[in-house]
Amino acid sequence: MKAVKIGICGLGTVGAGTFNLLSANRDAINAHANRDIQVTRVGARRDNSACDLSNTEVLRDIFAVADSDIDVLVELIGGTTTALDLVLRAIENGKHVVTANKALIAEHGNEIFAAARRKRVQVAYEAAVAGGIPIIKTLREGLAANHVEWLAGIINGTGNFILTEMRDKGRDFADVLAEAQALGYAEADPTFDVEGIDAAHKLVILASLAFGMPLRFDAVYTEGISAIEPTDVIYAEELGYRIKHLGIARKREQGVELRVHPTLVPENRLIAQVDGVMNAVMVKGDAVGPTLHYGAGAGAGPTASAVVADIIDVARALETPPDQCVQALGVVDDAMADLPVLPIEEVETACYLRASVLDKPGVLSAIAQIISKHGISVEAIIQKEPAPGQDHVPLIMLTNRSSEQNLRSAQREIEALESVEGRLISIRVEALNG
Amino acid sequence: MKAVKIGICGLGTVGAGTFNLLSANRDAINAHANRDIQVTRVGARRDNSACDLSNTEVLRDIFAVADSDIDVLVELIGGTTTALDLVLRAIENGKHVVTANKALIAEHGNEIFAAARRKRVQVAYEAAVAGGIPIIKTLREGLAANHVEWLAGIINGTGNFILTEMRDKGRDFADVLAEAQALGYAEADPTFDVEGIDAAHKLVILASLAFGMPLRFDAVYTEGISAIEPTDVIYAEELGYRIKHLGIARKREQGVELRVHPTLVPENRLIAQVDGVMNAVMVKGDAVGPTLHYGAGAGAGPTASAVVADIIDVARALETPPDQCVQALGVVDDAMADLPVLPIEEVETACYLRASVLDKPGVLSAIAQIISKHGISVEAIIQKEPAPGQDHVPLIMLTNRSSEQNLRSAQREIEALESVEGRLISIRVEALNG
Repeated sequence: MKAVKIGICGLGTVGAGTFNLLSANRDAINAHANRDIQVTRVGARRDNSACDLSNTEVLRDIFAVADSDIDVLVELIGGTTTALDLVLRAIENGKHVVTANKALIAEHGNEIFAAARRKRVQVAYEAAVAGGIPIIKTLREGLAANHVEWLAGIINGTGNFILTEMRDKGRDFADVLAEAQALGYAEADPTFDVEGIDAAHKLVILASLAFGMPLRFDAVYTEGISAIEPTDVIYAEELGYRIKHLGIARKREQGVELRVHPTLVPENRLIAQVDGVMNAVMVKGDAVGPTLHYGAGAGAGPTASAVVADIIDVARALETPPDQCVQALGVVDDAMADLPVLPIEEVETACYLRASVLDKPGVLSAIAQIISKHGISVEAIIQKEPAPGQDHVPLIMLTNRSSEQNLRSAQREIEALESVEGRLISIRVEALNG
Repeated sequence: MKAVKIGICGLGTVGAGTFNLLSANRDAINAHANRDIQVTRVGARRDNSACDLSNTEVLRDIFAVADSDIDVLVELIGGTTTALDLVLRAIENGKHVVTANKALIAEHGNEIFAAARRKRVQVAYEAAVAGGIPIIKTLREGLAANHVEWLAGIINGTGNFILTEMRDKGRDFADVLAEAQALGYAEADPTFDVEGIDAAHKLVILASLAFGMPLRFDAVYTEGISAIEPTDVIYAEELGYRIKHLGIARKREQGVELRVHPTLVPENRLIAQVDGVMNAVMVKGDAVGPTLHYGAGAGAGPTASAVVADIIDVARALETPPDQCVQALGVVDDAMADLPVLPIEEVETACYLRASVLDKPGVLSAIAQIISKHGISVEAIIQKEPAPGQDHVPLIMLTNRSSEQNLRSAQREIEALESVEGRLISIRVEALNG
């Protein structure tokens, strides 16, 4: 077997997991790659006691790894500044690249892939989305015969853990977030996870693969879960739905919808039952119909599983001409479609609305009139009895599918009614059935 | 783009679906393959009105297709006699092969792959297992860094449709089977589906990919669903389980378990909620943890999705040296492990037991004694009140994990008790959690 020299940059959780998996499952890995995969260099600011580095040359300067006589550079340092320089330098040096860095690919993938094409090297990034679930390979190869109509994914484990706890235990957002931080599921600064930026990075990658379009991180609409209240989790349940934080990409005639937001999903969909830190991605192809791909979205083992799968693919095809290899975004360059991403106002969804309204005759009919005037119809209503001493009651409505613009106009008019207190809560609804 | 010439043999549901998908999604397919994929020959005993064959040369002799100037032969005629001759002839002629034929691969794959290696051609068979779910690619490439510990799949849609109807509507097996036949979900001779032979074919393929071992269709233990009674579906539910017909492969120190049988699965597992004709495969890898892959297991569209994905992979790598391609069973030949397949007596599972017992003191304790004597413990018991005028009552027990041999011995002794009427019903139980 030919030897393939690997340089791993970054020796945190994922770096150590990758280093150790390559060693623990070495025989199976080499048998799949048909190559003798050797980690000849590690670039890390400090050693990691989880790794036995006695037989590996460790360099403190990661750029020295990119300049050394390796075949494949594995970028696991994260971030979009040094990581970008490192990856571009490796490519410039003719090294193939494997990365787990979703932010890097989502924000700089177009540039990175163009550089790789020029230098005839491969860039693989399975671990960037949904950890151990081979969703990149599934979209790019397994479902390559399909026109993908839409995809929807739980692609941030922290957010899903928080929503699961809120539902199971009736706890509120801030309370669960604090626990998730204590457990190490959420960062000290949780913005990336709970405000949907991490999910947006991943969604952009999935959408490019699904629709054969360049990466458009600039165009994704992102809404987090920090505004979700336990009461909405309960009302959603009464209506037969669960609230999930989904990344959704949908192809329409006019363009592509690209959005991350809390979403009501019918409780009998498999994806509604994906709980805790687990990830799942639904893909609807025109030939295959709906599919779902489920697994751990983070952690040393699952992420290393994806990184090493990439290393195997790259190592096996080290001498394969680029036109015989799978393209980074699935399709060859001149087949890329620069599809317009629709502004959020043009997105179409059903909607869950909650208002606090005066408990007196005529209020419901006034609201129903406004909704109807905007061409929206109501599928279900829950109106609660007032609590003792209260003159306002919650009114919950489920609308049918309509444009965001119409929904927002109706919402503003309803909020302007005297009988309506404060702002409306609105959460989008997706049936995910066709 | 280089042209790649395809010959499709067989123009039934899947053949027509493949022909039409290649035409309908031609641009996307060619963009993924980086090749101009052309169906230049079709071999079929008769035309199919679903296909526009006006620009395609149709041959009545499928072997003439294998002898023509095609690059890839797509075998969609089914069966294991003519199909075997056809595939071997194509390989002998230096053609690459794509097939959807699970029986052919499960029973003759070792021979076919050996012939393909000698002639340096590829044989691809994604559509052979779980229709449109890219589970072959997922096991062989996506999870290639893992040691797979076990896998469990709902891999026969007909059987799952019948079990779903039995549960949802309390109907009995024969009744639902008749409906499935009328709907076209089940064949006139349903043996292949309901007795588990079809699932066994698929399981054997999955196990070889998971464990890097030759195909062992001779060694799989197979039990169908025709003996499942509605009453067991109900009791399973009372215990928090659903009955699914699973193909299960598990690696143990002593060897590999390879078995198809009805199985009680905890109702909160995702796979327990896979209903109707849908398929799903769980894979537990040592690095990735548990994963699940869900989609349609049959039908023209889903099967064609998998066949065409294979065509794309093969077409792209037409000139790629075999040692730079993914191996048919994932690992290179000399890494194949001829793992022993354990006889069913050595398999270990928990068990659901139902007996009809005399409603008098001492009976339960006698049964409990026998079970305990064989080193088995009981996790849960349901004992029903006797119906008016009945002196026997149903006794349902859930045991912990033990060897089939011990369970069978205990079962025989219990059946020999005077207070026990007739035979015990026993159904294996899998937690599918680790």
